[in-house]
Amino acid sequence: MYNQLAQFIRDKVSISEEELDSILPFFKMISVKKNEFLVSHGELGHQLYFVDKGCLRIFFINEEGQESTRHLAFENHLAGAVISFITNIAALEYVQVLEDSQLLYIERKDFFYLLEKYPIWEKFYRHYLEYAYVTNTNRLMSFVTMDAKTRYENLLKERPIVVKRLPNKVVASFLNISQETLSRLKSKK
Amino acid sequence: MYNQLAQFIRDKVSISEEELDSILPFFKMISVKKNEFLVSHGELGHQLYFVDKGCLRIFFINEEGQESTRHLAFENHLAGAVISFITNIAALEYVQVLEDSQLLYIERKDFFYLLEKYPIWEKFYRHYLEYAYVTNTNRLMSFVTMDAKTRYENLLKERPIVVKRLPNKVVASFLNISQETLSRLKSKK
Repeated sequence: MYNQLAQFIRDKVSISEEELDSILPFFKMISVKKNEFLVSHGELGHQLYFVDKGCLRIFFINEEGQESTRHLAFENHLAGAVISFITNIAALEYVQVLEDSQLLYIERKDFFYLLEKYPIWEKFYRHYLEYAYVTNTNRLMSFVTMDAKTRYENLLKERPIVVKRLPNKVVASFLNISQETLSRLKSKK
Repeated sequence: MYNQLAQFIRDKVSISEEELDSILPFFKMISVKKNEFLVSHGELGHQLYFVDKGCLRIFFINEEGQESTRHLAFENHLAGAVISFITNIAALEYVQVLEDSQLLYIERKDFFYLLEKYPIWEKFYRHYLEYAYVTNTNRLMSFVTMDAKTRYENLLKERPIVVKRLPNKVVASFLNISQETLSRLKSKK
């Protein structure tokens, strides 16, 4: 059950099998049904989730009550309400399962215990944070520098899985456009 | 010349004076004149800058040729074209000095050498990345969930120095609004 997670970690850092054997059991498997929430606005995001199978989305709700999807995590990605996980302050965002999913989760206290105990876990976390920083900053840049059409075309090029696998409602909220605009963009392709 | 930087590091991690003495000399002091560019679009952002005195801004230019300011760093902050610094790919953004400034910079190769050599530097970098991630993600959230008025009011509350110290043009580009909208918001207060 740990094969994919072990490979995900090995891809980021040079880790011994002994260290892996000590770290992996801190992750526990759960099966979660489509549409269930793992974290809601106002709760602590005290877990990180590795997607073994399925899909997670992290979203928040804007002043007009509309959903805006910040992040989508498919298989072999680690995700969660990361700001809350880092700061230990109640989340402003929601973590929802979009398909029936198998996840491996780790508790915040265990994660931070591992950081103290294993320098290699500190290095792994650094690589994860670098990735998360680059991903989010590029998204921030796309929102303020690109129009809807360019954002949609980039998504098709860089992450076609999002458009292929998820309903229009989610894709539109990920691009931060209305479903009508998305339909118009799709019909033009 | 290293007092402020040493304190900045000590505030983030428990570091010995011996380790500090080994790490600090990798930072070199430079004086930079107002409006000079440290990194331009298309160049490698192969340095990080600690602001001893002055102010840096990181911005990019959108499809309509307008500037959008991603980040502002005043005294006692570490900043740069961080995506390029992490990925070693040419920057999409600009790093500009907004006031005559004194900076301590470190080269990427030295920074990454220190990561390998000193576990405490890995921990310091982790704290820096956590801060950078939280800051940028909150900004991303503010752009898609809040209107211009709310963003301006939050800025006044959380970082009044930005409005007090910088010209309207920069403040507007930081809020991602026009100078006319900013003037209207200011006159309403």
